[in-house]
Amino acid sequence: MGQTPPVVGWSIPRNAEADTLRKANVLPPESNVDLMSEIEVPEDHPRYESLLTRHRIEEGVDKGITSRQGLIAEGRGEAFDYLLGERTIESAERAERAAAAQLLLADHPVVSVNGNVAALVAAETVDLAEAVAAEIEVNLFNRTAERMDAIAAHLQEHGADAVKGLTADGRIPNLSHERAKVDADGIGAADVVVVPLEDGDRAEALGAMGKTEIVIDLNPLSRSAQTAAIPIVDNIIRAVPNMTAHARELESADRETLEGIVDEFDAEAALAAAEAAIREGELQ
Amino acid sequence: MGQTPPVVGWSIPRNAEADTLRKANVLPPESNVDLMSEIEVPEDHPRYESLLTRHRIEEGVDKGITSRQGLIAEGRGEAFDYLLGERTIESAERAERAAAAQLLLADHPVVSVNGNVAALVAAETVDLAEAVAAEIEVNLFNRTAERMDAIAAHLQEHGADAVKGLTADGRIPNLSHERAKVDADGIGAADVVVVPLEDGDRAEALGAMGKTEIVIDLNPLSRSAQTAAIPIVDNIIRAVPNMTAHARELESADRETLEGIVDEFDAEAALAAAEAAIREGELQ
Repeated sequence: MGQTPPVVGWSIPRNAEADTLRKANVLPPESNVDLMSEIEVPEDHPRYESLLTRHRIEEGVDKGITSRQGLIAEGRGEAFDYLLGERTIESAERAERAAAAQLLLADHPVVSVNGNVAALVAAETVDLAEAVAAEIEVNLFNRTAERMDAIAAHLQEHGADAVKGLTADGRIPNLSHERAKVDADGIGAADVVVVPLEDGDRAEALGAMGKTEIVIDLNPLSRSAQTAAIPIVDNIIRAVPNMTAHARELESADRETLEGIVDEFDAEAALAAAEAAIREGELQ
Repeated sequence: MGQTPPVVGWSIPRNAEADTLRKANVLPPESNVDLMSEIEVPEDHPRYESLLTRHRIEEGVDKGITSRQGLIAEGRGEAFDYLLGERTIESAERAERAAAAQLLLADHPVVSVNGNVAALVAAETVDLAEAVAAEIEVNLFNRTAERMDAIAAHLQEHGADAVKGLTADGRIPNLSHERAKVDADGIGAADVVVVPLEDGDRAEALGAMGKTEIVIDLNPLSRSAQTAAIPIVDNIIRAVPNMTAHARELESADRETLEGIVDEFDAEAALAAAEAAIREGELQ
């Protein structure tokens, strides 16, 4: 591939608004995302995003981060993303902006990371956490010490300073033992949690604890998406960098502006728009 | 689960027509499908089919049959099946009947088997091949000697006498080397081929060779489904036993009757009906 232009920077989001933010250098050059070392495919390649995704998932399997269930979940996501047109729809863009505002308003925001999140957007998650001063906590549906350690190490390789989730001295009420584990001073104490690709039971139980949930899920009718204060129906590989871009742009906004953005966001309307896009979109 | 009734028989198809066929003993007692030894969940359990699928896929991974790509493909299928309502829609039932008729009319029918087909419906595929006097040939998108052998052994454990695909002395024109391999006296010489869960390039190349293709694929807009003479938009775990049930019922039908069933089938209308079901169906 000697003649293809090199891949540079952190620029995964492809929609117009994110492009604007990139040109305006809202996403900082010190980002933890480094595509140079990943795949030698130009960003304008029509299958760029799917090749990058595939590469990262394969690496996740090799590192013991991505489980069998994670591979199947990745396939389910691919199908929904295909039906959405593999793009960030307008309502998702608004949800990503509202999520950024909500995170900036939070006293104690935490981003929850499972195997697929770590495999797909490790550096992007670290960027987001830095942009909104959130903590990162590893939480697995199928929790084993080996996978917890592999994921924490992978996040640290991608720039994370501290990774929570290994202490597991807190519990989410009404969940079975392993599913219930959280860090008491992490998700246990959080007011706002980002739960990408989360299991429905956990999403409901976290909501019942009174936490404000930001869910990233490509199925608008999943219980996780339905439970969320802010559901983002978008591919995580586009959603997380987009949230970071919005957070950087809103960094110096006042509380009233941020609250206005959150209040304007309508979760039910966003889910309905996503469902309509899946049903009425042009299949490829 | 001591009090649940035992799982008996071969009865995966759940729709009314298949139930009728089962009651009429059209599906024979000597079927190769033996659910007794698989999962201890009653057939009327609401998640029966998905638990059985999950169990078989896990076993496929353990046996070296199901690849990483196979797990992701399984997830894509799950999402489309969810949108379809996890049921055999009427147009798919008609396609399964037309496929059975087409196979009974064939001079040299072959059922192509890849990793997911072997993992999900090994015994059901052997039943189908017996019902229509077809050969079984293993064909892999990612061909390795180890996976070929594991799949052939798995099919033999589930009742297959002879499994083709290991000789690989024939080639499909216009495909790269590994993708092109077939047995000259198997798919190479076939007039009708069943290609479940097939890659689009291979499906097109087989069509270009003049073979009548029966494709099983949950995405009605995939190139494989679009290429097929008879596209079956249904979960393979329902489709294959349904085809067998129809073949048993049509066993003694005359040529004219079979040709009438094939001629009546309208591939474009079936694909349109499947797309409509995905778009307009009640999501769960």
